[in-house]
Amino acid sequence: MAKVKVLVHGFGNIGKRVAWAVLKQDDMELIGIANRSINTNIRSMFSLPEFKNVPIYASTPESLEKMKQEPFLNIAGTLEDALKEADVVVDALPAGTEVNYKPIYEKNGVKQIYQGGAEANVAEVSFTAIANYEKALDRNSVRVVSCNTTSLARTLFALESNFGLEEAFVVLVRRAVDPDDDKGGPVNATVPETHLPSHHGPDLQTVLPVNITTVAVKVPVTLTHVHVVNVKLKKEVSIDAVLSAFKSDKRIKLFDSSLGYTSTAKIMEHFRDFRERGDMYEVAVWKDSINVNGNRVLWMHAVHSEAIVIPENIDAIRAITAIEKDKFKSIEKTNQSLGIL
Amino acid sequence: MAKVKVLVHGFGNIGKRVAWAVLKQDDMELIGIANRSINTNIRSMFSLPEFKNVPIYASTPESLEKMKQEPFLNIAGTLEDALKEADVVVDALPAGTEVNYKPIYEKNGVKQIYQGGAEANVAEVSFTAIANYEKALDRNSVRVVSCNTTSLARTLFALESNFGLEEAFVVLVRRAVDPDDDKGGPVNATVPETHLPSHHGPDLQTVLPVNITTVAVKVPVTLTHVHVVNVKLKKEVSIDAVLSAFKSDKRIKLFDSSLGYTSTAKIMEHFRDFRERGDMYEVAVWKDSINVNGNRVLWMHAVHSEAIVIPENIDAIRAITAIEKDKFKSIEKTNQSLGIL
Amino acid sequence: MAKVKVLVHGFGNIGKRVAWAVLKQDDMELIGIANRSINTNIRSMFSLPEFKNVPIYASTPESLEKMKQEPFLNIAGTLEDALKEADVVVDALPAGTEVNYKPIYEKNGVKQIYQGGAEANVAEVSFTAIANYEKALDRNSVRVVSCNTTSLARTLFALESNFGLEEAFVVLVRRAVDPDDDKGGPVNATVPETHLPSHHGPDLQTVLPVNITTVAVKVPVTLTHVHVVNVKLKKEVSIDAVLSAFKSDKRIKLFDSSLGYTSTAKIMEHFRDFRERGDMYEVAVWKDSINVNGNRVLWMHAVHSEAIVIPENIDAIRAITAIEKDKFKSIEKTNQSLGIL
Amino acid sequence: MAKVKVLVHGFGNIGKRVAWAVLKQDDMELIGIANRSINTNIRSMFSLPEFKNVPIYASTPESLEKMKQEPFLNIAGTLEDALKEADVVVDALPAGTEVNYKPIYEKNGVKQIYQGGAEANVAEVSFTAIANYEKALDRNSVRVVSCNTTSLARTLFALESNFGLEEAFVVLVRRAVDPDDDKGGPVNATVPETHLPSHHGPDLQTVLPVNITTVAVKVPVTLTHVHVVNVKLKKEVSIDAVLSAFKSDKRIKLFDSSLGYTSTAKIMEHFRDFRERGDMYEVAVWKDSINVNGNRVLWMHAVHSEAIVIPENIDAIRAITAIEKDKFKSIEKTNQSLGIL
Repeated sequence: MAKVKVLVHGFGNIGKRVAWAVLKQDDMELIGIANRSINTNIRSMFSLPEFKNVPIYASTPESLEKMKQEPFLNIAGTLEDALKEADVVVDALPAGTEVNYKPIYEKNGVKQIYQGGAEANVAEVSFTAIANYEKALDRNSVRVVSCNTTSLARTLFALESNFGLEEAFVVLVRRAVDPDDDKGGPVNATVPETHLPSHHGPDLQTVLPVNITTVAVKVPVTLTHVHVVNVKLKKEVSIDAVLSAFKSDKRIKLFDSSLGYTSTAKIMEHFRDFRERGDMYEVAVWKDSINVNGNRVLWMHAVHSEAIVIPENIDAIRAITAIEKDKFKSIEKTNQSLGIL
Repeated sequence: MAKVKVLVHGFGNIGKRVAWAVLKQDDMELIGIANRSINTNIRSMFSLPEFKNVPIYASTPESLEKMKQEPFLNIAGTLEDALKEADVVVDALPAGTEVNYKPIYEKNGVKQIYQGGAEANVAEVSFTAIANYEKALDRNSVRVVSCNTTSLARTLFALESNFGLEEAFVVLVRRAVDPDDDKGGPVNATVPETHLPSHHGPDLQTVLPVNITTVAVKVPVTLTHVHVVNVKLKKEVSIDAVLSAFKSDKRIKLFDSSLGYTSTAKIMEHFRDFRERGDMYEVAVWKDSINVNGNRVLWMHAVHSEAIVIPENIDAIRAITAIEKDKFKSIEKTNQSLGIL
Repeated sequence: MAKVKVLVHGFGNIGKRVAWAVLKQDDMELIGIANRSINTNIRSMFSLPEFKNVPIYASTPESLEKMKQEPFLNIAGTLEDALKEADVVVDALPAGTEVNYKPIYEKNGVKQIYQGGAEANVAEVSFTAIANYEKALDRNSVRVVSCNTTSLARTLFALESNFGLEEAFVVLVRRAVDPDDDKGGPVNATVPETHLPSHHGPDLQTVLPVNITTVAVKVPVTLTHVHVVNVKLKKEVSIDAVLSAFKSDKRIKLFDSSLGYTSTAKIMEHFRDFRERGDMYEVAVWKDSINVNGNRVLWMHAVHSEAIVIPENIDAIRAITAIEKDKFKSIEKTNQSLGIL
Repeated sequence: MAKVKVLVHGFGNIGKRVAWAVLKQDDMELIGIANRSINTNIRSMFSLPEFKNVPIYASTPESLEKMKQEPFLNIAGTLEDALKEADVVVDALPAGTEVNYKPIYEKNGVKQIYQGGAEANVAEVSFTAIANYEKALDRNSVRVVSCNTTSLARTLFALESNFGLEEAFVVLVRRAVDPDDDKGGPVNATVPETHLPSHHGPDLQTVLPVNITTVAVKVPVTLTHVHVVNVKLKKEVSIDAVLSAFKSDKRIKLFDSSLGYTSTAKIMEHFRDFRERGDMYEVAVWKDSINVNGNRVLWMHAVHSEAIVIPENIDAIRAITAIEKDKFKSIEKTNQSLGIL
């Protein structure tokens, strides 16, 4: 079977990781990346051998001229040139700009994958692999939901599918900026999102129809969001049953603070040792935080904002092109390729 | 009526504020402060005219010798010397040390007020003025509950007394250290308290018998804890009814993020302008975060860890000595003296 | 003698402090404040009794309409209305906007004081009281140099005037944002100003003609800049001589880390106890950091970005209006009024 | 030639990296690692295939019992068992503990490499490869100097050897803690090391005899120290000459802030993409910060505290065992193996 030809448009913290992950797939080909300018991510990644032969395209004819002035990098043409080669474009541009490019993607007949910062209506279906892979099969456009929503889709799907879910209440303690950001703050403040409930609940409902309320607070850290989750199940459960449900998804990983994983710093250090770029594709659930009282379950988990949606993007490419119709086969293939064990 | 003679033992961030607040009361006399050493708080506060004539005592005979070597400060004797003059001692030493001093206080027949870091059984009754002032009347020992618990006692009392409270779930996003701390961390991590539920729920129940579950997460900020509160009332309410309940307690203050109070930084800046030391005695509820859905109420509030228990300590002095038997009269007198309007 | 009528235009962290300081002067009258909108600083400060009768003006006719909709506050008119009453306007608007208002100030014949963020050529003379008070006498416009420059002007003036200064090299470790800021960063990065030397050296030379090179680095703290200063004097000195030189200026204050003042946190805590708003008008020199080796002197000092220029603004008002022609008399009067002892 | 048998004792942030780097050398064999307990670093690294067959030893017989209780890990014996197999031990335990183990290493006749936190007199010679490789040849004990000192040894050696160095003045803006630390602070303070000059100058002189004065300030970031360096050379130079000198050492890497490398965050992000664990073995000099004025040179550089000494440890193993007597050959071999290009 011919490999799916993938173009990644937008080379920020998500785009560069999707491109890198596409390179690891044997049923996909990275035909290029496109961006609006040469940024530090391009400079760094294109000094890696894996990217030596990957063409770089300019988002617009105007940016092409400027990007061509860059020494050492080979600029192959414009976005439209690239789209002519592509089956699927993964749009990982800053949220809000996707609406400008969607008509161009469509005009060129290229299937589209958007990220969670985009409005849900940008695509035919919102997506988390474990929750609704089938709905994305053979579509023209799919939106991978945001990092926070993805973590909730995975953990709540595990409980909903095993026990039934009555309601969920989640408080999101959000990282302020990604590690490479040196401009955004705050430096010494906790910033509540005072419009309650937050948008994360409705966003989850685009992939998993559950009764959920969410509240978000932003704090000055760069590494991972932390969620406090309080759910009411449709029946009483034991801690072991919850653990089994979580363990059934390899994209949920358990950490025990009594073994030294006392914070997001300790968990992320694990992934610095363990995986390129320190990426944590899994939701990290603090095992010893799981508390069960009848049909009430509490826990805390950490979400690596830069990485958790990367496997979902790969699965979304398989779903949207229907090169793999079986959810579990796609998930397993992606897991293997990315070292999710 | 003779003024109540108060000794403050421990001159950290709470002790110095209690001492300062006692000086503002017309029915109390600060007969001295005691501490285990000369620290920067003593150096700063005793350069203020208000403290010029306040005697300083040493916690132990050993520390007396060392403290006497300090130039410019007048060390009047030991803790036991001071206790001979005192009716009430406010113990504001680091949590865990109070058990060493309790026998000395008792031997000298001095009534005791402890802080929330101490175990509940250190005192006959745990205390928040609005919730259970009467229980502290004429006792020998009272424990003012911690900053977090005090904020919950006030807000939940307002709802419980007006509407009845079915259950409460609270996530506490805790400040890591006080502003004057330059050693404690974390610098760039979110630290969950993985033993769930956290101790704050049971601690609240020492002053207010409600069904509550709490979870805590520590983040790298120095200014104020933030709570996300989710309560189920015994009946349906309107937002206006909730606002009225909150407004009935002057120690609850409403801030509107749409007017610019978008974070703990903005709220604390208000108190820098408004009150000595930037102290926020009130719980700061984000007015626009209050969300009502039937009998469910959500909101977020901020808690100034250094200051919120100061008015409670003053009320506790009145209660324990029974110089004021009426809860509301004591609260109002304290509020007036401290500028809680 | 008639009091100088002062208008403060711009009510941010500097403007509100200048207004507050003007209220403390017996030879000045705060005839109003002007701003482009109602912000949280106005909300907070105008709930203080001192500000009850201070008129608020709108920077433009357009903003007047919007500001008039605010309940509880009395909006008296526009900037031009206010200028008709004023002798001096202190412009404390964000840097870069002063050029828009300068023609309006001039048209109304009002003397102007600008802040250090403005270009030097906005005013006839740049100003630090101890360094060049006389040059500002009876001018039409004066620019108070920035917080960092003011701290260097004071400390280097003390050495230059006593011993002669051969050269100075200064590294500024800058606070990222003020404490009330909840948007700016960085969160976890050190940001060098790579254009070397930094502008602080030339800026100092506008008030003190010395041979100086400066380099600046920005770090994620909200409280005070820290400077590392390395100077070569024209003759050999002793530590005691340096201490005497620094002690001759009350706006230089010595702190000893061995007494517990181990960081900016500890020093700022002193001022929280000691002065409204926690303001440190003085340069805080770590006494035990002073190191002398022949004619080389090293030390470190801390600079409260929000407060250090406030006494200079007051002195600048006296100089520009010539109501006090003697530098030392003005400085002493300002010091007394602001509690600089 | 038989491979050098290396034991790494201490498996913190340095030890785990040294062990990992030894595995990359074709003239060395990692015969095991020893530690005082099972920590998160062991848990993470020993789930990597590279470490599958590496024996783990316990520092003491007491810790052996405890460590044996750990499931999944194979504990092979005690430190003394391991020393019997080893030619060289790299001691990477917390500073101050090396003195307890030195007699044990000596008793077993094993050559020792210590880290920069140890006192200089723990070893026969202090070491930075480029500065004094020859001095370490065939010694019994060598101390690799600290991260900060290593960065200065490299950059100042480049200038000293090319132009002669008259004097250097350096301000170190230190990261507070490593990224995996969730306990140390400060959160919002700048902490000066008030004992001036700091120990870094004398420490550099153990490897490079130059006239240097250093001052250090600690700030709340986790990633990289930043140095501001001011040197006076023995002759006038051009920027190009300085660039050439720096470029002659592959362990000095130039970054241009105008290309987007505006902070430590941006530079470290490069290494997240580029190298396992995000390690920066090089000193990162901001190219556009280099300022030359006659014989004066200014610049700023960043130092990755976890990684910069790793190549030096590898070179130190070669020097102490004399398996490679040529400095440049060892450095080049290490550079190749670690991807320093």
